[in-house]
Amino acid sequence: MAGTDGVVDLLGLLAYAELVAFFRLSEDAALAQSLADKAALGEMAVAEFGHFQKLREELRSLGAVPEEAMGPFVAPLDAFHARTVPANWLEGLVKAYVGDGIAADFYRAVAELLRPRQRALVMEVLADTGHAAFVIPRVRAAIEADPRLAGRLSLWARRLVGEALAQAHRVVGERPPLAQVLVSTADYERGDQGEIGRMFARLTDAHDERMAALGLADWERQVETEAAAD
Amino acid sequence: MAGTDGVVDLLGLLAYAELVAFFRLSEDAALAQSLADKAALGEMAVAEFGHFQKLREELRSLGAVPEEAMGPFVAPLDAFHARTVPANWLEGLVKAYVGDGIAADFYRAVAELLRPRQRALVMEVLADTGHAAFVIPRVRAAIEADPRLAGRLSLWARRLVGEALAQAHRVVGERPPLAQVLVSTADYERGDQGEIGRMFARLTDAHDERMAALGLADWERQVETEAAAD
Repeated sequence: MAGTDGVVDLLGLLAYAELVAFFRLSEDAALAQSLADKAALGEMAVAEFGHFQKLREELRSLGAVPEEAMGPFVAPLDAFHARTVPANWLEGLVKAYVGDGIAADFYRAVAELLRPRQRALVMEVLADTGHAAFVIPRVRAAIEADPRLAGRLSLWARRLVGEALAQAHRVVGERPPLAQVLVSTADYERGDQGEIGRMFARLTDAHDERMAALGLADWERQVETEAAAD
Repeated sequence: MAGTDGVVDLLGLLAYAELVAFFRLSEDAALAQSLADKAALGEMAVAEFGHFQKLREELRSLGAVPEEAMGPFVAPLDAFHARTVPANWLEGLVKAYVGDGIAADFYRAVAELLRPRQRALVMEVLADTGHAAFVIPRVRAAIEADPRLAGRLSLWARRLVGEALAQAHRVVGERPPLAQVLVSTADYERGDQGEIGRMFARLTDAHDERMAALGLADWERQVETEAAAD
């Protein structure tokens, strides 16, 4: 069972991630062409903010100061987003679906190791807020209209995953309590990060499914190889 | 009593204004320095989105298509915001408080003429979401630290009001049903827009109070003169 420090780390990381998801979705909403799309994306943004509030509440109930719990994760998450600014609306959609998808898989995997109450909270805040249903038909329609987009968006998705894995490794490396949540204490003390590597490898399976849903190219083998070699 | 078209116009205008307020506040939240400020502004943004949802619901219950009801007001509101992009965080705070304040006074004045149910809705969505309490101490503290800011921010506020009045006149001029909500039908048919002018003049009184609350310069006479001459 994870120690309290690790739990605070995980909830702090997730809280900041949800806050940033709120900002990013609001921005996407503002850029949407139609009022209906603006409203739909705005609703998803508001749902993410609700998740942030719940996580902040849980941090307080654990005796943590939410701002302090989030603090260590501001730089890596901001770095991820600064390095993956979408050049256009479609890249934004792919980022929201593919990037948030792999992040959610990561958090869910970690949550398996939490106490039931916190596991339930993490699963709740990671429930899809309708994003997939919004993104998939729009990206598929764009690719059908202009098939050259598939290659460009596949490359973009690859970059997103690469940057996400790089920042995830950084976070785990810098936060021993969080690393302890990820591996059994015994493994951690032996310096064995094998379980983390295996988890990252598993994440790419779910990622492949998302790429297929978007109608994007089949390049998953290469990412798995890169992740395993990392 | 206002005709249905005028009510739909007013609720459509207000709905789009709330949607834009949501986008702008989310952006301010993303730019805030501290996590606590990000969260506080995010909460206000989410409250504005809730107002948007209620207005959209009311439009639907009147048999209107919300996107169509909002449509005519997209251009003037977007024009206002495009012409008043804050150059920095403090200008953003002043815009949120002074700009939204005068807009809220305008909507409240119009709502006086609505049926009780819709009047109550408008008053509810215009209730302060904590913005004043957030902005006032921050602007006052900034001016105390650097008194030269007072002049610059006063000029900025003057520009905001000028642009707001210009767009409000444009909206009223282009939307006869909305103009009918503003003046009695008889006055409207005589082409008498005197009541509208008097209303705009009254708005500046509440505006003066907000300027004083921010500790900004006493320039209200000039604005009143300009508004009356417009």
